[in-house]
Amino acid sequence: MRATDTDFMALALSLGRRGHGRTWPNPAVGCLIVKDGRIVGRGWTAAGGRPHAEPQALARAGAAARGATAYVSLEPCAHHGQTPPCAGALISAGIARVVAPLQDSDPRVSGRGFAMLRAAGVEVTTGVMADQAARDLAGFFLRIRAGRPLVTLKLASSFDGRIATATGESQWITGPEARRVVHAMRARHDAVMVGAGTARADDPALTVRGLGMTHQPVRIVVSRRLDLPLTGQLARTAQETPLWICHGADADPRLLSAWSGLGARLLPCALQAGRIDPASLLLALGQAGLTSVFCEGGGALAASLLSAGLVDEVIGFTAGVMIGAEGQPALGAMGLSRLAEAPRFRLIETRPLGGDILHRWQPAG
Amino acid sequence: MRATDTDFMALALSLGRRGHGRTWPNPAVGCLIVKDGRIVGRGWTAAGGRPHAEPQALARAGAAARGATAYVSLEPCAHHGQTPPCAGALISAGIARVVAPLQDSDPRVSGRGFAMLRAAGVEVTTGVMADQAARDLAGFFLRIRAGRPLVTLKLASSFDGRIATATGESQWITGPEARRVVHAMRARHDAVMVGAGTARADDPALTVRGLGMTHQPVRIVVSRRLDLPLTGQLARTAQETPLWICHGADADPRLLSAWSGLGARLLPCALQAGRIDPASLLLALGQAGLTSVFCEGGGALAASLLSAGLVDEVIGFTAGVMIGAEGQPALGAMGLSRLAEAPRFRLIETRPLGGDILHRWQPAG
Repeated sequence: MRATDTDFMALALSLGRRGHGRTWPNPAVGCLIVKDGRIVGRGWTAAGGRPHAEPQALARAGAAARGATAYVSLEPCAHHGQTPPCAGALISAGIARVVAPLQDSDPRVSGRGFAMLRAAGVEVTTGVMADQAARDLAGFFLRIRAGRPLVTLKLASSFDGRIATATGESQWITGPEARRVVHAMRARHDAVMVGAGTARADDPALTVRGLGMTHQPVRIVVSRRLDLPLTGQLARTAQETPLWICHGADADPRLLSAWSGLGARLLPCALQAGRIDPASLLLALGQAGLTSVFCEGGGALAASLLSAGLVDEVIGFTAGVMIGAEGQPALGAMGLSRLAEAPRFRLIETRPLGGDILHRWQPAG
Repeated sequence: MRATDTDFMALALSLGRRGHGRTWPNPAVGCLIVKDGRIVGRGWTAAGGRPHAEPQALARAGAAARGATAYVSLEPCAHHGQTPPCAGALISAGIARVVAPLQDSDPRVSGRGFAMLRAAGVEVTTGVMADQAARDLAGFFLRIRAGRPLVTLKLASSFDGRIATATGESQWITGPEARRVVHAMRARHDAVMVGAGTARADDPALTVRGLGMTHQPVRIVVSRRLDLPLTGQLARTAQETPLWICHGADADPRLLSAWSGLGARLLPCALQAGRIDPASLLLALGQAGLTSVFCEGGGALAASLLSAGLVDEVIGFTAGVMIGAEGQPALGAMGLSRLAEAPRFRLIETRPLGGDILHRWQPAG
């Protein structure tokens, strides 16, 4: 059976996903060059965003690119940035046809790549697997549209929604399989984010471990007053693995200097009712180039993002353990006056994972 | 393809399950009479526990029972109670072979039924679908073994483990599909049980509705002081649908008289640390004949049963709604000093149900 445009595009999309978490602020794109039904070149956006997918796939294809079809998971760029435009490279290589799911909403591209290809006599087919491509690149598009990264909120708790006992004991509520999946999820995001309370209570490393990866997402701590332990894991590793601290403008200048000296990047954010305003926080992160953030709590930060309607996906891990009402809640105060005001999510998936449940939800609205 | 012993036993078991919730303190048994590969009679324990499954199946089979095989989901009884022994009835009808999964652990039966059949020349095969039969009759066996009913704990909550907002609003957290399944679960248990706090806060009817059933499980409220509204739904319907109140010995005698006058049955229970002792509670219910109880909270009763290790299955319904830390917790205080002391459950099943998740767990130990 002959492979279809959809089959090849699915492959191009999966190549694109290899770059998730590594290409920001650029989109993670995949490209496949196909000649007479055979794959002659593959490429994906490199870490840091350059080179793009197309020149890499063309380089592998060499002379075979002449008269071939290129499957690209996003419209090829048309502007001279730090690299020459990919649309031009496809034309120069003699590509006869380009298949792409979507137009790039980056204002510097936005249809110009397709126009340049068509003007050069290249056949352009769009719309193939557009929904999946839109999901894969949702963070990139959201940052262009709204100026903020996509937010995935992870909440791992006991059956009764607790993340620690009254005395703060939290190791381990969920099992090793769930924790391993969390590390893989971290790796697919541009950044991992926690609140100051979690940073103080757990002294986390927030790195990706146990998966044989060298790439590490940016680590973000949200702390109005910068009152974080200067001797913890985050402080110790700030030179090796990016550490960003989002703080209020009223943070102690000596602490700002200390964290800056340790190697952290400091992002000032606006306050709202005495706390860091979640919208200002995400705009600062978008401004800094992030397209996706994996928030792992704690309860106060999670509640703040949920209350503001700034969570794009919730991933729950529920363990079969009963901690009781004295335990620490996965979600802080939401200040609801009526049940109808509570943020609602629709179920995407639920499945067993080790001894726990994994469940994924997206905004119902 | 010829039907096997297992096929017929599966059918006998499903007939037995028709009596779940209706036959206590007797087991809900199914019986199938098969002659030359054809089903000639079916029966199941009637509501109230009499007549038993076997005489009903034999009556339908009539003369065809001679030389036939009887598939019975539990060892036929051998003692003269309010009905003549079923083993004798099978012999008189000329049954040639009896297939059963399990010996009845009731000391009045306990192998005597099989012995009586074999002594009369009836071939007896046991062990067919024994695991499923043991699950179906777990409450009956548990009451014989430990004197208490099987306890299924249902906890329906928001994503973050809350059963109501701070102001007590709880309608509706889960969706109509989950609520419908809850009614079906009530119907399969001998009794539905809640704590006094839930009875006061929700004014529940605790009946099975919307399923076209007339049979209603016993309704149990656990209330140390009997301080329940005398004008609520439970009080109004106590004449029509059984209402049992488990109370402390120190309850006000005037309230005892009032509830008794309204038609409630009163069961005194021992106290422990100022609350009704959960072991004493369940022994009282076992003594009264119940083999299975469906506990629907609230948080204090659930925590009390869980802490005492008296929950045999937990059924969770999780909705995609975020209530926050001010909400009322699904589970009350457990008094844990270490995470290792927290009751652990192993996952049996998780699946989407309407917009919610259904998940079932059993003790891990």
